[in-house]
Amino acid sequence: MKKRLVIALGGNALGNTPKQQLELVSKTASTIADLVEEGYDVIVGHGNGPQVGMVNLAFENSNRKTGSTPEMPFPECGAMTQGYIGYHLQQSIGREFERRGIEKPVVTLITQVEVDPKDPAFENPTKPIGSFYSREEAEKIEKENGYTFVEDAGRGYRRVVPSPKPVSIVELKTVEQLIEAGSLVITVGGGGIPVIRKEYGYEGVAAVIDKDRASAKLAEDLKADTLMILTAVEKVSLNFNKPDQKDLDEMDLEEAKRYCKEGHFAKGSMLPKVESCIEFLEATENGKALITSLEKAREALQGKTGTILHK
Amino acid sequence: MKKRLVIALGGNALGNTPKQQLELVSKTASTIADLVEEGYDVIVGHGNGPQVGMVNLAFENSNRKTGSTPEMPFPECGAMTQGYIGYHLQQSIGREFERRGIEKPVVTLITQVEVDPKDPAFENPTKPIGSFYSREEAEKIEKENGYTFVEDAGRGYRRVVPSPKPVSIVELKTVEQLIEAGSLVITVGGGGIPVIRKEYGYEGVAAVIDKDRASAKLAEDLKADTLMILTAVEKVSLNFNKPDQKDLDEMDLEEAKRYCKEGHFAKGSMLPKVESCIEFLEATENGKALITSLEKAREALQGKTGTILHK
Repeated sequence: MKKRLVIALGGNALGNTPKQQLELVSKTASTIADLVEEGYDVIVGHGNGPQVGMVNLAFENSNRKTGSTPEMPFPECGAMTQGYIGYHLQQSIGREFERRGIEKPVVTLITQVEVDPKDPAFENPTKPIGSFYSREEAEKIEKENGYTFVEDAGRGYRRVVPSPKPVSIVELKTVEQLIEAGSLVITVGGGGIPVIRKEYGYEGVAAVIDKDRASAKLAEDLKADTLMILTAVEKVSLNFNKPDQKDLDEMDLEEAKRYCKEGHFAKGSMLPKVESCIEFLEATENGKALITSLEKAREALQGKTGTILHK
Repeated sequence: MKKRLVIALGGNALGNTPKQQLELVSKTASTIADLVEEGYDVIVGHGNGPQVGMVNLAFENSNRKTGSTPEMPFPECGAMTQGYIGYHLQQSIGREFERRGIEKPVVTLITQVEVDPKDPAFENPTKPIGSFYSREEAEKIEKENGYTFVEDAGRGYRRVVPSPKPVSIVELKTVEQLIEAGSLVITVGGGGIPVIRKEYGYEGVAAVIDKDRASAKLAEDLKADTLMILTAVEKVSLNFNKPDQKDLDEMDLEEAKRYCKEGHFAKGSMLPKVESCIEFLEATENGKALITSLEKAREALQGKTGTILHK
């Protein structure tokens, strides 16, 4: 069996408009082809923060201003972004493979990720989505739809949804089959469409699963050798952006946990990335995790740069 | 090898709003489970007419009224609907399988379908999409974006896109692998995302591929035993809705072609369905094609109703 590499692409690998996304994604495709050429089975997870915000907002605007299109629930918006981002990724990666003579089908799977309805995140929604409302509007919608709104830095009221942990990847077996058949799989887009278990099957729920956590769970379930989280910086740093900033070549599990506790990593930014690596390392025998930039991904995989996390 | 059945789901299997779609799709899921219980490997194609119109319109409205979200190109709108419809279908079919004890992964593939840029359809765009514009607005957008607009029955000007024929299904190999691995595959949603061949890889193009034609192409390429087109009526009729209406139990290839020529079937409705069946029959050795309603699908597969087309 080939070594398996799960990568988690961040917003900087995608872009904010369809035109921008198509441009950025071609650079991303080149990096992914590099990683395949390093001899790995590569599985691609990606974020959807700006994109799901855009889809949600477009439907909200259209519904409020014209009434000619319906409201679009949040899980369905996520499903749309999986199609939209996956299409660009698979087209660009396919083109790059062909250019390099790599014969490998590229495939996007619409992917549901189960969350626990008892996850404490549901008691405390924190992820802002969609547009700003006045206090009166927000209270009206809270009553009508049961949404939660919070005041956002003086700019008005914004809907918030919970960010629960991933419990299982519903389409895991298919991902496994496709890797074995030699395909490059794009999955858990935006952290996956969040669903909860019912007596039979699953049902969508308004939530956002962190894409790094979902990718870590995927890496765990696929028994991947390496989890690689791609972000805006080449290495993880202590005292980031301070005079005594120290870039890290590596961390063991204990150090990683201590640094998290000491508050070195920003909430909603580097912290969930390091925590996702920790979760992956704790769940596997010999796995390692890498955090680096898209540009340095190949070198990091060769052990030349990036921050490596190990047991 | 199990017998392969490609079904093409029409708009009546889906619905116009997310809520309606989720309800209708559960009925559709029950029919699909029936067909699986008949012993077939079932592959699901589906339309997206109302859905891609809705997505396109929401983005158009939001962009025109607020400027806070970008314009969304048509192929990307199609990719979104594949995610949106596929998610509902796979969730509902998965639930129905579990209820019946059928162990079979259900998977939605984001699917590109190649069209020929020299297809005569590009000279004569016919499919209306999006909202109505005044003559002045339409002329302005025609100049800016190179879109084509036509006057639509006194209601204003509407953008039209071409409806070329499917040439090949880009992700065919993956569909094949997943069927062999025992999965139920949802693919060529909305007729597939239309793309044209470039020196390397593919590029999206604003067009609509007829979903029945795309499903027929899929059935041909998969060497399916049966193509089943599900629509609003139980049987195909001659002199439809006239006093001498005659429902057909069967047609051979020659009869089907003659009836098409004689104008028995409505353009944009029954005609492309019968034509798609003809294309499938001509391309295969022993295939048969069925046209019937969602409600009668199982009985039709058992040979008890529907209209069967054969050589």
